[in-house]
Amino acid sequence: MRKIKIALLGLGNVGSGVWKILKANNEEIKKRSGYKVEIAKILVREKSKERAVEVPEKLLTTDFNEILQDDSIKIIVEVMGGINPAKNYILSSIKKKKHIVTANKMLLATEGDELFKAADELGVMFQYEASVAGGIPIISGINDSLTANKIEQLYGIVNGTTNYILTKMQFEGMSFEEALKKAQEKGYAEADPTSDLEGFDAQYKLAILSSLAFGTKIDIGSVYRAGLSNITSEDISYAKQFGYVIKLLAIVKEINKELEIRVHPTMIPETHPLANVYDSFNAVFVKGNAVGDLMFYGRGAGDLPTGSAVVGDIITILRSNVDIENGIPVVKNNLWHKKIRKREDIESRYYIRTTVKDLPGVLGDITTVFGENNISLKSVIQKGSDEEHLVTIVLVTHKTKEGSIIKTIDELYELKEIHKVDNIIRIEKFK
Amino acid sequence: MRKIKIALLGLGNVGSGVWKILKANNEEIKKRSGYKVEIAKILVREKSKERAVEVPEKLLTTDFNEILQDDSIKIIVEVMGGINPAKNYILSSIKKKKHIVTANKMLLATEGDELFKAADELGVMFQYEASVAGGIPIISGINDSLTANKIEQLYGIVNGTTNYILTKMQFEGMSFEEALKKAQEKGYAEADPTSDLEGFDAQYKLAILSSLAFGTKIDIGSVYRAGLSNITSEDISYAKQFGYVIKLLAIVKEINKELEIRVHPTMIPETHPLANVYDSFNAVFVKGNAVGDLMFYGRGAGDLPTGSAVVGDIITILRSNVDIENGIPVVKNNLWHKKIRKREDIESRYYIRTTVKDLPGVLGDITTVFGENNISLKSVIQKGSDEEHLVTIVLVTHKTKEGSIIKTIDELYELKEIHKVDNIIRIEKFK
Repeated sequence: MRKIKIALLGLGNVGSGVWKILKANNEEIKKRSGYKVEIAKILVREKSKERAVEVPEKLLTTDFNEILQDDSIKIIVEVMGGINPAKNYILSSIKKKKHIVTANKMLLATEGDELFKAADELGVMFQYEASVAGGIPIISGINDSLTANKIEQLYGIVNGTTNYILTKMQFEGMSFEEALKKAQEKGYAEADPTSDLEGFDAQYKLAILSSLAFGTKIDIGSVYRAGLSNITSEDISYAKQFGYVIKLLAIVKEINKELEIRVHPTMIPETHPLANVYDSFNAVFVKGNAVGDLMFYGRGAGDLPTGSAVVGDIITILRSNVDIENGIPVVKNNLWHKKIRKREDIESRYYIRTTVKDLPGVLGDITTVFGENNISLKSVIQKGSDEEHLVTIVLVTHKTKEGSIIKTIDELYELKEIHKVDNIIRIEKFK
Repeated sequence: MRKIKIALLGLGNVGSGVWKILKANNEEIKKRSGYKVEIAKILVREKSKERAVEVPEKLLTTDFNEILQDDSIKIIVEVMGGINPAKNYILSSIKKKKHIVTANKMLLATEGDELFKAADELGVMFQYEASVAGGIPIISGINDSLTANKIEQLYGIVNGTTNYILTKMQFEGMSFEEALKKAQEKGYAEADPTSDLEGFDAQYKLAILSSLAFGTKIDIGSVYRAGLSNITSEDISYAKQFGYVIKLLAIVKEINKELEIRVHPTMIPETHPLANVYDSFNAVFVKGNAVGDLMFYGRGAGDLPTGSAVVGDIITILRSNVDIENGIPVVKNNLWHKKIRKREDIESRYYIRTTVKDLPGVLGDITTVFGENNISLKSVIQKGSDEEHLVTIVLVTHKTKEGSIIKTIDELYELKEIHKVDNIIRIEKFK
């Protein structure tokens, strides 16, 4: 049996998962790859730390050079996260013609292009299935399975933390704060949950998926992003009245050779398969012009699901029979150059929840503003006034441009009756 | 730009899809594969037939030897279906070192082993993504993405016709016959729908998926199969009362190193993601010991979805950089040898609908038979008698062995009160 030596950079959550899987499924991996995989070195910040797995101390090192200079190590598995020093470690490893497996979404979303190019030039394999949606094979789905298709749109739930929170709000009537607390107790949300809640995590993942699906470079700054933190139980309950559920979606569509790319809370019909993706599960829909709608569903995080993708990537390299001197064909990141659509040109339906003063003619005044902006309304709900003589008015529009909505909201604030525009949520039907 | 010549065997539904995709997505395919793909010959039964696509007559041939002897043709795309002559054509092509793409589930389920071996010996690529669940990349999901996992179970909806019928019965209150007629009008069911309705189609697909997921040869005869034709609106409605929906599922599980393999109508909880797979859509769940639950969802049939998988396979061959003289590593079909569990040893929950004579003590007599066979009951519903003094009794059991159920049903028929056991449907919760 042939042997291959690999090194892990990092031994946190994902690194521990990789360690466990290589132990537990040793037999399967040998039979499927034709190799005995040996973890020769693991880069850690400190050697004597309590860890989720028991690892012989002689494997641990705090010095990356020990790994880099060891020519018997053929594959570098980067599971440390962050941009630096991960980027430099990967680039130096590529120069040494070591093949790369990474789970690092932030790095790929911001510096992927440079890394792909470096690997490509030296014929080094560069695998990153684990960087988006953990154990779900969405990267190979796009790169390998859907190659016969022109991809028209891709959208999905790519953040488990926010999906868990929305599930708790939807089914157990929790407030946003209660649901967040519960997510933190369960380990689904970090102590500082900003990256998940404000959609940064989803933004990274969407940038990666968009660049692969549309073969174009995506500047992370061009991905519109809105977070979850102003969604209230009221919105959840109005959504239900209209036959919708709220999910934090990552969406990319090609329209007239432009890409529309955005991450935001979205109302979708309750009969849509994504509506039944609960808890911390992820799911991604891809529409190809030949295959139609495809959905990939599974665990988007966690040591073993993400480790499953990392180890799968290691096996892909082993089975590729790639010679270290020769290149392999990869999906180039820059086959096409696509323009990113301006936010104002996005077309959607909108749910708008407002609080207004209970004055005569208020509903007429508000709907007139919509009319003047050529926005037609599908439904309007007005709820009786409270002690402060404030009334909730919820409006659902037909399809319109986001530019018109922004203008309308500005004009609403000029009305004397307006107390607050509480929330604006886009509604997608994904026809 | 490099050029590659391929030949199609067959120009029916799938063949036309392949033709359309190669035309429409010509640009994408060139960029992604690095090749201009040219269909050099198409084997048809008769040249002058009305077809879904316009094909230059000079490409058509009725003589397979014209294709076989043409050394410039490097890839054979078999989309004719059936066992013979497809099998002989493929074997002769392999001997000529032509690479193979096939969509033929019946052939793979029954003769796959011989074909895999022949291709392997001569280092010929053999791709068959389209053979199961059309455009859904479930084959590469198992073969390439889940390689780090020990697969524990796999189950899903792999037949679109029966799923369409069940959807119409569930949501529009149609009878089985009405729904079947509607499916035939829509082109979802064939004039002779036996293969779909009786589960033969699903049985072929399950045999293929099981052999890949568990690395073992599966004798198609060892796959238990029950069809849909005795499901009535009554069963659908009782299922709803219990919080279930009925789906025709293909199921394989490994239990104590034995495989349990079966195709039958199944009640599943209405909150299970498979419960929301409607119309002619397919979906397959795979549970790996690292990745957890994964679901692949999409169009399981149709010219373009299936063609998408076929063309994807062609691109896989082109990108593999395989040299015609040298082999490539493939997932061997016989890594392990697994025993198939006997039907009597299958454990499940059961829904049993009976019609009985309205005599005093009938419920007691019936439940006693269950008790004597150590089967405990979860729910019992008795419905008032009709003019003929017949009563419906529906029983739902806790988990028990199928052997005990078979014995119980036999004993029920010995009771004087029993008119008929109308239906037995397994209930799965897939924990």
